[in-house]
Amino acid sequence: MKYPNGTKMIKSNYKDNFTSKQSFGNRGMTLEEDINATNNYYVETDRAIIHKKPTPVQIVNVNYPKRSAAVITEGYFKQASTTDYNGIYRNKYIDFEAKVTKNKTLFPLANIHEHQIKHMESITRHGGISFIVIRFALYNETYFLQGEKLFSYWNDKLKGGRKSIPYQAIKEEGFFIPFHYQARVNYLSIIDKLYF
Amino acid sequence: MKYPNGTKMIKSNYKDNFTSKQSFGNRGMTLEEDINATNNYYVETDRAIIHKKPTPVQIVNVNYPKRSAAVITEGYFKQASTTDYNGIYRNKYIDFEAKVTKNKTLFPLANIHEHQIKHMESITRHGGISFIVIRFALYNETYFLQGEKLFSYWNDKLKGGRKSIPYQAIKEEGFFIPFHYQARVNYLSIIDKLYF
Repeated sequence: MKYPNGTKMIKSNYKDNFTSKQSFGNRGMTLEEDINATNNYYVETDRAIIHKKPTPVQIVNVNYPKRSAAVITEGYFKQASTTDYNGIYRNKYIDFEAKVTKNKTLFPLANIHEHQIKHMESITRHGGISFIVIRFALYNETYFLQGEKLFSYWNDKLKGGRKSIPYQAIKEEGFFIPFHYQARVNYLSIIDKLYF
Repeated sequence: MKYPNGTKMIKSNYKDNFTSKQSFGNRGMTLEEDINATNNYYVETDRAIIHKKPTPVQIVNVNYPKRSAAVITEGYFKQASTTDYNGIYRNKYIDFEAKVTKNKTLFPLANIHEHQIKHMESITRHGGISFIVIRFALYNETYFLQGEKLFSYWNDKLKGGRKSIPYQAIKEEGFFIPFHYQARVNYLSIIDKLYF
């Protein structure tokens, strides 16, 4: 997430999307926006209660102008210590991270942090469902990869193995997430198949 | 959370605590700090994976100085749409809010927002454990009140009933949360008794 000085962050989320080939139904939406729309749909239809966690910000300075809202005038982005999304579905704790790559042939493991892997491993150990959503932007394909598969590639990397997961392996070991008009990244359809 | 102009937020969390009577073991810690310390202890001992969600901030302007970290130069506090804490314990989804009152005889329901109640009701309906931690600052007593009890008071209020929960009712219908040196707000001890 890089923004030039003075850029309004809220709108600039849209900017990257029009440059890559995307299907009509998905035009102009980032993965984050797609997942947020999906989660809103799940909440509205009472299917699951899953939300994105706010971006962690270290707040250093706050001003209180008279008769208007408090303004944060100095803050810094902090590294997330967990994953971006969590919640509950069919009595199960759900926890996942979502990443986009512009790479054509692989997903670089550098996209994930060590402490996020540790967190996801803990979730699995405690009986939750932990996974990663990976979008290959150039193909506009989105995959569901179970935590266990991710941990296995991660541990290989730690032992000096490859630093990425091949696109082909994700196609084979992961699950293509279907697009649904309202549940744009309909990941619960994969969870239904895998865990229930 | 009100800070005078230019105050450093990080340190000022401490300021209120030295003014109220607190036990030696708990001296100078806010409820949030106590719960964060508790959650860290639970994670370190692998007992539960529960975290506070970051404060939601609407980021409007970001500067990228050369050779240093991005600075948020304009941001606003957003109202949280869910609760502050969630995670997993013994296969169960855990979700709660924590509030302090300086009132001696009651907990004002104005401390909670309608959408937080709706969220907590959804969690309960989907099989999660939802509750509120209430600290009476003047007594330095911290209570665990199950979601169902809170909803009942909330619904009474909507029907024109009282706008608060009496301290005495919280003592009787809730559970006193014991202080533990490392798990300072040892709420899992209550969950163990109530749900397992």
